[in-house]
Amino acid sequence: MASNVTRRTLLRSIGVAGGAGVMFESMRALGLMASPQALAVPGFRPPRTGDLDGRKRGKKVVVLGAGVAGLAAAYELGKAGYRCTVLEAKDRVGGRNWTVRAGTTETDLDGHTQTARFSRDPNIYLNAGPARLPQSHITLDYCRELGVPLETFLNANANALIYNERTGVAPQQYRTAKADMYGYVSELLAKAVDQGSLDASLTASDKDALLTFLSGFGAIGNKAAGYAYTGTSRRGYSVEPGAADQAGTVLGPPPPLPAVLASQVGRYFSFEFGYDQAMTMLQPVGGMDAIPRALYDAVGRDKVRLGARVTGVTDTDRGVEVTYTDRRGKEVLLTADFCVATLPPHLMAKVPTNLDPAVTAALRYPTVTSAGKIGLEYRSRWWETDERIYGGITETDMDLQHIWYPSAGFHGERGVVVGYYNTGGSANTYGALAPSARTERALAQGVKIHGEKYRSELASAFSVAWQRTPFLEGAWVGWPSRTSGQYALLNKPAGHVYFAGDWLSYFIAWQAGAFDSARHAVTGIHQRVMAEG
Amino acid sequence: MASNVTRRTLLRSIGVAGGAGVMFESMRALGLMASPQALAVPGFRPPRTGDLDGRKRGKKVVVLGAGVAGLAAAYELGKAGYRCTVLEAKDRVGGRNWTVRAGTTETDLDGHTQTARFSRDPNIYLNAGPARLPQSHITLDYCRELGVPLETFLNANANALIYNERTGVAPQQYRTAKADMYGYVSELLAKAVDQGSLDASLTASDKDALLTFLSGFGAIGNKAAGYAYTGTSRRGYSVEPGAADQAGTVLGPPPPLPAVLASQVGRYFSFEFGYDQAMTMLQPVGGMDAIPRALYDAVGRDKVRLGARVTGVTDTDRGVEVTYTDRRGKEVLLTADFCVATLPPHLMAKVPTNLDPAVTAALRYPTVTSAGKIGLEYRSRWWETDERIYGGITETDMDLQHIWYPSAGFHGERGVVVGYYNTGGSANTYGALAPSARTERALAQGVKIHGEKYRSELASAFSVAWQRTPFLEGAWVGWPSRTSGQYALLNKPAGHVYFAGDWLSYFIAWQAGAFDSARHAVTGIHQRVMAEG
Repeated sequence: MASNVTRRTLLRSIGVAGGAGVMFESMRALGLMASPQALAVPGFRPPRTGDLDGRKRGKKVVVLGAGVAGLAAAYELGKAGYRCTVLEAKDRVGGRNWTVRAGTTETDLDGHTQTARFSRDPNIYLNAGPARLPQSHITLDYCRELGVPLETFLNANANALIYNERTGVAPQQYRTAKADMYGYVSELLAKAVDQGSLDASLTASDKDALLTFLSGFGAIGNKAAGYAYTGTSRRGYSVEPGAADQAGTVLGPPPPLPAVLASQVGRYFSFEFGYDQAMTMLQPVGGMDAIPRALYDAVGRDKVRLGARVTGVTDTDRGVEVTYTDRRGKEVLLTADFCVATLPPHLMAKVPTNLDPAVTAALRYPTVTSAGKIGLEYRSRWWETDERIYGGITETDMDLQHIWYPSAGFHGERGVVVGYYNTGGSANTYGALAPSARTERALAQGVKIHGEKYRSELASAFSVAWQRTPFLEGAWVGWPSRTSGQYALLNKPAGHVYFAGDWLSYFIAWQAGAFDSARHAVTGIHQRVMAEG
Repeated sequence: MASNVTRRTLLRSIGVAGGAGVMFESMRALGLMASPQALAVPGFRPPRTGDLDGRKRGKKVVVLGAGVAGLAAAYELGKAGYRCTVLEAKDRVGGRNWTVRAGTTETDLDGHTQTARFSRDPNIYLNAGPARLPQSHITLDYCRELGVPLETFLNANANALIYNERTGVAPQQYRTAKADMYGYVSELLAKAVDQGSLDASLTASDKDALLTFLSGFGAIGNKAAGYAYTGTSRRGYSVEPGAADQAGTVLGPPPPLPAVLASQVGRYFSFEFGYDQAMTMLQPVGGMDAIPRALYDAVGRDKVRLGARVTGVTDTDRGVEVTYTDRRGKEVLLTADFCVATLPPHLMAKVPTNLDPAVTAALRYPTVTSAGKIGLEYRSRWWETDERIYGGITETDMDLQHIWYPSAGFHGERGVVVGYYNTGGSANTYGALAPSARTERALAQGVKIHGEKYRSELASAFSVAWQRTPFLEGAWVGWPSRTSGQYALLNKPAGHVYFAGDWLSYFIAWQAGAFDSARHAVTGIHQRVMAEG
């Protein structure tokens, strides 16, 4: 940071002395202008056919967990011929990457059994876990490599709504909220600039350039008009323009500045600026589980044992011994050269092992986060036909938190709205309820935004509370500190046991973290094997 | 406006006196808080089966032009049994709604013939005319009614680029430009607020709320840090985060404020706030011409005569007489009860008629705009694999103006980039060139942004200059004034002749304007017929 500040100060001086052209030249010389091609993805060399020769052939790896990390590890190791066996406690692959469709059944830790009564239609599903892919993530590289077709996921929509119940303001469209907030911000800053309040920070040409920007950004009046924001068609129309004399009626006038500020609509705007959330976002066509299904096929379905609950891991001089209970309740022993353990850390911590107690303690260290979602199948796509909302997210201050509208299947007969996607305390509130009560709560809150059709058009619902879901018992974990030793310890092998999962990455709660962590474990194993005499 | 100002002043007083809750209540009482359901689309009652009885049955209408307005008029009139004949000079329907695919051939007014050598693939096409649909437009209602499947059109992408050649700055991602501009704007306004410069406009609680907003909006430091903007991961990373110790390296530091202002990156930001351009935008799957093709089928292909060039329109006591030259050069006379004339006004003005000379003068009144596009088919989707750009638009100050990346077919083998979409003088510059020279110019400019692969990966190109396209001779028109009589005159029937087209609406250059204008003409005819004794 110190050197950044120095460089900035230097550049500022250059800019003042020599103008923008000289400044930009200097910036390039200092390496401050990265070209868009410069993004470096951490290097990974996948194991290849031919890497393993002689007695290195046929090395065995047992993988715990057939979530994205486990499947990806088996997939990459398989490229060089490692003999992998993947043990999965659930009766399906994917872990948290779980797409609920017609007929999906799940029983939670409280004994609630739900069976999805969704329509049988390719666009009628709930991505109960991950549901969106940022364009920067290596998850897309796997989609390309595995042939998983992608389509746009709409993470932002100007026609989606903002509803802050506590401020007492009716739901309003993002477009309206943005127009007002950006308008007033521009008005205020233009006034401050014009009256010389920022002359210590701005040269005359800076001021000109800034006022030009604010004029367009906020759609505000000119100097003679006091730079006033008085509304704009960006807010929307109360009557649409059309043919002949139908000029349209702009929605307005805007509320006064204090009302806009008090409504707190602006607090949602920066979501879409986030590195991982800015459009373009993507989703696999037909459901997120296309990714684990493609990995499952690529790994070889015969390599994955479903219904296999791990009961012990023993690190030995020559490798690992893993015991598990199969579907029939029979205890099975597997031996292998290595183990890749991808269970959630708080569950891995409960598996009996002979590993260093510091390892088990480290597995217990991350804190577990709750999250929940509900899929509401509707008999009509009223959000499209009645409210002109094609995908996107409505933000609220209610404990449903977010409502998602489907990003595909536009104008279809039916659609699935995500009636809540919440985390932390709100997820615990919903998760503590029986599924039918969750539905009722989601409807009662949604009706405040969308009216009675939110209840009357409902066809069926299916909800998940990740913290109450067997073999996962949480949505994701957080590290109270990454520098206190535990994170580093678990990113190193414990004898022949390598841990992997999004929780061992800087992309927690993203599949990219699971993929990259799997690569990290694979690289560790492969380099060790290659280095053997 | 006067009453708005009064209401705002009143509300301001209420807000200061009674707080936000009272203010919002007052706003609702004054009708200032429109609910999202309140958007009114101009009413339209389509003609229906049974409307025409007795001798009203079999009323004939001749429609000039099989663009969207002409087809929509025939489609709506057909619902009540009007016998429509549509005359179209070109050998295809759609008018400016034109999708270029493998084998498409066109000869322009300068004698240049192009045949598209695009790959035969559902996602390999160029929408040479309209290419995006806003979610508010009635065009979507027609897509639903006609069964035209839709998918997202990406009108904004944080990974797309901004390149202002004249400022000498290297191309940078939208996300980076936004992070810097919003960061500095927030820093400056926070400073002004904090130092009391805006105390005349802001109460203490306004200031608190605004500073809270700016903190999140700009990702700026706190008061102790002088509200300074020093960069954020919103800018992007020079090294992606990943597993284990790969925390990622945030792209930075940001250029100093004067450099950001001088680079003029901010001038493109407000595009996506526009009522017609804000996401969600949509496109028909497989090409925009799915709309006219669906209308063509719904109207009945036998009702449309292609290659029919109108040579005269005579309004008579009982209806209209229209003459045209058919494909074989034969003159044909059609009589009908009414005519819906949807040719571009500047071309309609050249058709011999017996209409009031004021009508012809009015047709000559709008000014014609040029526009051009080029489709560049590439052998690889390097923008996705190398630059992580999935759809969206790169903005430039070069005369190519905009580069569009495809919104569908992600990870396919090939794709079509719109290498330029420009209007006005820039379109004339390109349009004056032979097609091969247009390609060369587009490549030379694009290489400055994307490097040599922009040239080396090219497979084929196809360009359109609408102002040089037969039977259209322009992209769209503008009205120097809508209140000087001509616009109103043409929105009324000239005897039995009704004009229609986007040019007779407040949605010029949008298909919604063509649809709504067609509805206007249809309503005029139908009400007149229904009112007959």
